[in-house]
Amino acid sequence: MSESYDFSIEELGKRNIKSPIVMSTVEGDLIANYVTDNQLVRLDTDAKPGAQSPLKKIQLMESAGPREMIYFTPAHVHAGIVSCGGLCPGVNDVIRAIVRCLWFRYGVKRISGIRYGYKGFLPEYQYGIRTLDPDKVDNIHKLGGTYLGSARGGGKEVGKIVDAIEQLNLNMLFTIGGDGTQHGTLDIAEEVDKRRLKIALVGIPKTVDNDFSIIDRSFGFNTAVDKAVEVVAAAHMEASSAIHGIGLVKVMGRESGFIAAHTALASHEVNFVLIPEVTFNLEGSNAFLPYLQKRLKERKHAVIIVAEGALQDKLVTEKKYDEGGNLKMADVGIYLRDRIIKYFGEKNIDINLKYIDPSYIIRSAPANPGDSIYCERLGNAAVHAAMAGKTKLIIGLVNNKFVHLPIKAVITERNRVDPEGDLWRDTLDATHQPALMANNFE
Amino acid sequence: MSESYDFSIEELGKRNIKSPIVMSTVEGDLIANYVTDNQLVRLDTDAKPGAQSPLKKIQLMESAGPREMIYFTPAHVHAGIVSCGGLCPGVNDVIRAIVRCLWFRYGVKRISGIRYGYKGFLPEYQYGIRTLDPDKVDNIHKLGGTYLGSARGGGKEVGKIVDAIEQLNLNMLFTIGGDGTQHGTLDIAEEVDKRRLKIALVGIPKTVDNDFSIIDRSFGFNTAVDKAVEVVAAAHMEASSAIHGIGLVKVMGRESGFIAAHTALASHEVNFVLIPEVTFNLEGSNAFLPYLQKRLKERKHAVIIVAEGALQDKLVTEKKYDEGGNLKMADVGIYLRDRIIKYFGEKNIDINLKYIDPSYIIRSAPANPGDSIYCERLGNAAVHAAMAGKTKLIIGLVNNKFVHLPIKAVITERNRVDPEGDLWRDTLDATHQPALMANNFE
Amino acid sequence: MSESYDFSIEELGKRNIKSPIVMSTVEGDLIANYVTDNQLVRLDTDAKPGAQSPLKKIQLMESAGPREMIYFTPAHVHAGIVSCGGLCPGVNDVIRAIVRCLWFRYGVKRISGIRYGYKGFLPEYQYGIRTLDPDKVDNIHKLGGTYLGSARGGGKEVGKIVDAIEQLNLNMLFTIGGDGTQHGTLDIAEEVDKRRLKIALVGIPKTVDNDFSIIDRSFGFNTAVDKAVEVVAAAHMEASSAIHGIGLVKVMGRESGFIAAHTALASHEVNFVLIPEVTFNLEGSNAFLPYLQKRLKERKHAVIIVAEGALQDKLVTEKKYDEGGNLKMADVGIYLRDRIIKYFGEKNIDINLKYIDPSYIIRSAPANPGDSIYCERLGNAAVHAAMAGKTKLIIGLVNNKFVHLPIKAVITERNRVDPEGDLWRDTLDATHQPALMANNFE
Amino acid sequence: MSESYDFSIEELGKRNIKSPIVMSTVEGDLIANYVTDNQLVRLDTDAKPGAQSPLKKIQLMESAGPREMIYFTPAHVHAGIVSCGGLCPGVNDVIRAIVRCLWFRYGVKRISGIRYGYKGFLPEYQYGIRTLDPDKVDNIHKLGGTYLGSARGGGKEVGKIVDAIEQLNLNMLFTIGGDGTQHGTLDIAEEVDKRRLKIALVGIPKTVDNDFSIIDRSFGFNTAVDKAVEVVAAAHMEASSAIHGIGLVKVMGRESGFIAAHTALASHEVNFVLIPEVTFNLEGSNAFLPYLQKRLKERKHAVIIVAEGALQDKLVTEKKYDEGGNLKMADVGIYLRDRIIKYFGEKNIDINLKYIDPSYIIRSAPANPGDSIYCERLGNAAVHAAMAGKTKLIIGLVNNKFVHLPIKAVITERNRVDPEGDLWRDTLDATHQPALMANNFE
Repeated sequence: MSESYDFSIEELGKRNIKSPIVMSTVEGDLIANYVTDNQLVRLDTDAKPGAQSPLKKIQLMESAGPREMIYFTPAHVHAGIVSCGGLCPGVNDVIRAIVRCLWFRYGVKRISGIRYGYKGFLPEYQYGIRTLDPDKVDNIHKLGGTYLGSARGGGKEVGKIVDAIEQLNLNMLFTIGGDGTQHGTLDIAEEVDKRRLKIALVGIPKTVDNDFSIIDRSFGFNTAVDKAVEVVAAAHMEASSAIHGIGLVKVMGRESGFIAAHTALASHEVNFVLIPEVTFNLEGSNAFLPYLQKRLKERKHAVIIVAEGALQDKLVTEKKYDEGGNLKMADVGIYLRDRIIKYFGEKNIDINLKYIDPSYIIRSAPANPGDSIYCERLGNAAVHAAMAGKTKLIIGLVNNKFVHLPIKAVITERNRVDPEGDLWRDTLDATHQPALMANNFE
Repeated sequence: MSESYDFSIEELGKRNIKSPIVMSTVEGDLIANYVTDNQLVRLDTDAKPGAQSPLKKIQLMESAGPREMIYFTPAHVHAGIVSCGGLCPGVNDVIRAIVRCLWFRYGVKRISGIRYGYKGFLPEYQYGIRTLDPDKVDNIHKLGGTYLGSARGGGKEVGKIVDAIEQLNLNMLFTIGGDGTQHGTLDIAEEVDKRRLKIALVGIPKTVDNDFSIIDRSFGFNTAVDKAVEVVAAAHMEASSAIHGIGLVKVMGRESGFIAAHTALASHEVNFVLIPEVTFNLEGSNAFLPYLQKRLKERKHAVIIVAEGALQDKLVTEKKYDEGGNLKMADVGIYLRDRIIKYFGEKNIDINLKYIDPSYIIRSAPANPGDSIYCERLGNAAVHAAMAGKTKLIIGLVNNKFVHLPIKAVITERNRVDPEGDLWRDTLDATHQPALMANNFE
Repeated sequence: MSESYDFSIEELGKRNIKSPIVMSTVEGDLIANYVTDNQLVRLDTDAKPGAQSPLKKIQLMESAGPREMIYFTPAHVHAGIVSCGGLCPGVNDVIRAIVRCLWFRYGVKRISGIRYGYKGFLPEYQYGIRTLDPDKVDNIHKLGGTYLGSARGGGKEVGKIVDAIEQLNLNMLFTIGGDGTQHGTLDIAEEVDKRRLKIALVGIPKTVDNDFSIIDRSFGFNTAVDKAVEVVAAAHMEASSAIHGIGLVKVMGRESGFIAAHTALASHEVNFVLIPEVTFNLEGSNAFLPYLQKRLKERKHAVIIVAEGALQDKLVTEKKYDEGGNLKMADVGIYLRDRIIKYFGEKNIDINLKYIDPSYIIRSAPANPGDSIYCERLGNAAVHAAMAGKTKLIIGLVNNKFVHLPIKAVITERNRVDPEGDLWRDTLDATHQPALMANNFE
Repeated sequence: MSESYDFSIEELGKRNIKSPIVMSTVEGDLIANYVTDNQLVRLDTDAKPGAQSPLKKIQLMESAGPREMIYFTPAHVHAGIVSCGGLCPGVNDVIRAIVRCLWFRYGVKRISGIRYGYKGFLPEYQYGIRTLDPDKVDNIHKLGGTYLGSARGGGKEVGKIVDAIEQLNLNMLFTIGGDGTQHGTLDIAEEVDKRRLKIALVGIPKTVDNDFSIIDRSFGFNTAVDKAVEVVAAAHMEASSAIHGIGLVKVMGRESGFIAAHTALASHEVNFVLIPEVTFNLEGSNAFLPYLQKRLKERKHAVIIVAEGALQDKLVTEKKYDEGGNLKMADVGIYLRDRIIKYFGEKNIDINLKYIDPSYIIRSAPANPGDSIYCERLGNAAVHAAMAGKTKLIIGLVNNKFVHLPIKAVITERNRVDPEGDLWRDTLDATHQPALMANNFE
């Protein structure tokens, strides 16, 4: 199938072991069936009538789930789990699901938690290993954060990481992390290949910003919106209780405005949403600040959400990067706050601006039930993939189905809010803000 | 397009009016585009490599959204909204979205809320009409329930309903309701056709059980799971704090076990999930009660979720129906409670059974943010469809996209948990219950 | 002080040990001071001007808190903790506070948790002991229920219990439980006296009903009201969304209507509160059901809270008791539901009654922050008392101060809502229900 | 009664009108009784045995509640309500209770809401009046903020305010606000006296900081602690998931550390609480930063709460005041964040500090049920007092009883955490922080 070329999944070798999970291969016996490698899921669901067969551009992905024949003998497995980067609701749910699926479904009893991201593999830090079992992880999903600790960076030291993996004698590693982490997963997998090791590398994509491409949404994103909605309710109360009250809330979203747009849609109380994907001017004839002034005049108060990545093109003149390889950003919330105060100050209009930056409150929350289910199923799917010897993949949800995605297919581009699509259209409907607050695409 | 035959959407007539919503038809101008009738969405995303072109069985659906040309002159529109059947989280969000989209986007200022379902149309009840505007509905989404009131029944009196619609001079009606309600919508639409009236009938599918076919999920379902998870946490605490504690929770789900299965997956604290789709025996060699006894012996406590429709084949000998046309069911929660007590009583095993029936707590809750977004967008899409003169349709979410579905395509069958599919498989993984607690498919 | 006679606290012997807690005895050094036995708290704050010195009837209680000299050598202490009776929010907070205060403040490292109430002492049950330390209890307050398990009964077997205490070599026991449990504490203390043992018995009063006398309120009560308010919101939504909707909620309160009255005050959505302290008739000229009918006619819906102990004089003809010595009650919720349905049925008035019995949901909840603080401080005070060798006491909150109360002074009578007092007066204000729905005190 | 001299309540004149509230004056009829002016409540409950009669220093306060004879004829009453200063959970509950008690209990139908604090009286702002009735305020308690709007300042323009009161023809005014607001209430009352008007001035004390003297606690305080606990949980998750993670949370508390101390007690996750009442050094031999370093070394993470008023003596060199007359403070949160970063930077110790400033999230929240009850009862008591012609008073809760307090007795000093008292002692127990992090009281 040439059209699915980019989506084929590598395996460590032939699968000779019968899975210890007892399932069925028969339809109609009311018992769940093993998943086969030729159960595929279509990515693209757009179609135009009269167009030529759309098959050519359809990309097909392998369904996730337990295979009848697996690669690893459970008794010989030593599995590792690592969580990297910033916090995100649901990390503990994923860890818990991996441990429980390995232990109860496959009988794997050697599971090691790596501390503080990839740095936990590096001998100079001496963070040690946390041995995992179902008892230890039984209630961790009720807490936020990550049970293993997390940190940015360390992923460039591929040689040392694989040395550590060899010393620990791991034969599968689950990496919970974002774009940078999954780049690292791929680098590790390639070093593993070079050393002719048989180690399955399976990634679980984590980004509270929801900016992973291809997948329906990232875990923790819905929880983040839940919490952001609470914060916007506070901002709205502050704004509407004050004279010329302005509530300004900064939410996460380095390159995408998904949290901002969804929060505006859910809260029904936002008047302006500012996101990286839609350029805007602050001052001038068709610009944000005059529109804000108009809103204040008509309605006496206003609520604004700004995604952290908005306006960066104007604010950042010199590019710097953090340990995790992420571009360092200017603080658009503070900048906007000061600009708004200055603007109205110059016009002698009294305003009451309340600025809220709730980032840490949002990302450290325990997963809501919807995300908890998602994480549970991601973790299960990751274990089934690794036990089958599949590698260099991440688990994704595509058109509501769990699939295997080659890492390299996912990390090449980011998911962004389409300014001409229905999400942004409905966001504008909800806020009543102008379609564009800029001229000539300045 | 023969394969999309069943999914073509009827319209009242030619669309001659330019939409008052200012959007773009140009790609790349950062302004959202109107939706055209030939933007289609594929339903079926399953594929097998090497199989023949799957196109033949693919069903294509029309994308929802604002059209450039519309059928109704906004100044002449009088819109009606009715909510029917039992409560469901999010009904007020849908009402609010319809009112606001009509008012702010199209300039429609005559909007009438029908009280207490279809009965509100019947003159004998004299419930009156509630005139709606954005101020009145501004905060109703923060409360649960339905602002218009709801009731079962009344939908069979099609002639009287259309009489009332004519008297009110409505030219569009939005019906928020389940299977029975949407049957009613279709009956009304056909009577409207007979009388050669130009009235758009647009349904918004409501079922807290998530048993509408074709659509990804029904609104309010995720909120219901959120609340059910809270209740299961209570049942688990009661069970695990007592000697031989058993927590038994009945959840909604007349014909499908979606709430039960999702709640088990999210809560991580359930040991047995009993649903209508998977038959089971209470006593015998491979049956529920002996398995429960085994669990109690090993772990000292157990938590059980039962969907209200489970075991009905055994409990109901004579079929009776309520006003809404729904089969009257036996109370499986009470029945199971008594059977468990009897079973352990006969074996002289002391148990502490706590039975919780939280149905009303669940269905009357305000929508969570995820459902709130869903409802907002459903309401918007319904308005866009009606203004374009489209009729006999419901708004659905299919593969994460909002589409128009002909009512008759949706109400013919129900969505059920597939006992051999991945949802049920992962539910069994989460509970560790046996794949089947029955012999010979009794 | 003759007037404080009933409130003097017994001690095991002379306190010769310097407390390991470093505090101050000097005012003005910004360091907290030890509490002395002659710091007393007045119970009665009512006064009438011109009346004789009210001192005679003032009862004085000893302040709780750390003493400079203590009775037990920390290294020799083996402490036991037991939780009895039904669940109540905050039990785990109390357990956690006792363990941490013993461990960190006094250096006591032998702490045993008795399983499942007093039965955990009885050899025939073989429930075993749970060894406790700060790590084990670190997060238990985030869960509801009780970490030790709880059960009714067993408290009559005083001899066996003291045998077990001797075998375990406990020298202090903390009993978390209600009226019956504290009777047991006193019986155990008296048996301990008889055997001339030196064991401190300290009770922490637990009653979700808030019916302990003397103390301001019982722990967990506020959390119970929080949860009951959520349930009433659901009942109100059901009632107000239906035609002639009636929401009926049964709440805990065997002999007192505190939860019912507070919930009505907090929710602002209740029309009738029925409690054991205020007798009422169901039918007749000045009775509940005719008033309910009047309310339905005027406002189309109604919400009712009934405390479980209401109407018991009419419902229970023969007295039976459960294992914990509590009178078995009739289910007033079910009874009222049926009576309401019958009443309106006979009058051919269609009603939609939704009955909710949320008891288990309420009592198994984790403590809210206010209760969590209360429990933390109760647990600390209990440890300070026991370490000082004080015994036969419970810890109470009186006029917002923590005090020592002799068990026998507390268990003689119950706290009840005063029908002529301000709580009930404000409840009637909030509900607008008639002051009395009965004639001639029938 | 000389000892209660400071606590006697002024009245506008003789009470000749029979209250329309039907209550009883008979004990034992199960009907609530009117409150009489000689039902007094004792403030001081401390006692020492053997000391002389403590009566001399006991202060007695008048009980709040409905009087049998009232001063105002309900049909002639025009009541005003104003809310001033910053937001606080529960303001809307108080407004709602006042409106409902006036309307339903006394039959007062003219009630005006003043917009945006005292400024709403000043003609230059033209904010207009919001006419109030029970329907309008029915659901406002479910939202946070204040329905009337609030603002600081304006209270010094006493003449203009009384002019406006006269123009509106108000005969009672309820002022919801803090220290400054209640100073204003008294000034207005005195101007009213001068003009020989008969207008009752009744204050409801509002301070989210809980720093009103005499009263048990201020409304909204418990809700603020609820929200602060959620934020600290986030800070704890961030800190404990990172390498050398430090969570720093700034909470409200200009002159008192009540929110900080209660939050630490409730959350069980705080290691350092820094409050204005307890001085501390940042560096040196017995100082905060070295202790923080020690904690990080031992436990790898730390959580700190700082009250906004801490360290102000060191940070503020020149005193400036805002419109409400409050001293402008330096931002201790930002200052501390920067000092911690600098300290560890100089020692080359990598830390991960997450700073959260949740103030607006906390103070704009809807009241929790406990505060909602409190506000309901405060509002009722305020109305009863005003209708009886009592003036220059605020309503307080003292030893769990609602009382009348002369404004001048309450505003003279502030409530502060006693560094040598039991609240701070138990806070130190919960945090394990040193009793004093300073030498020589620097």
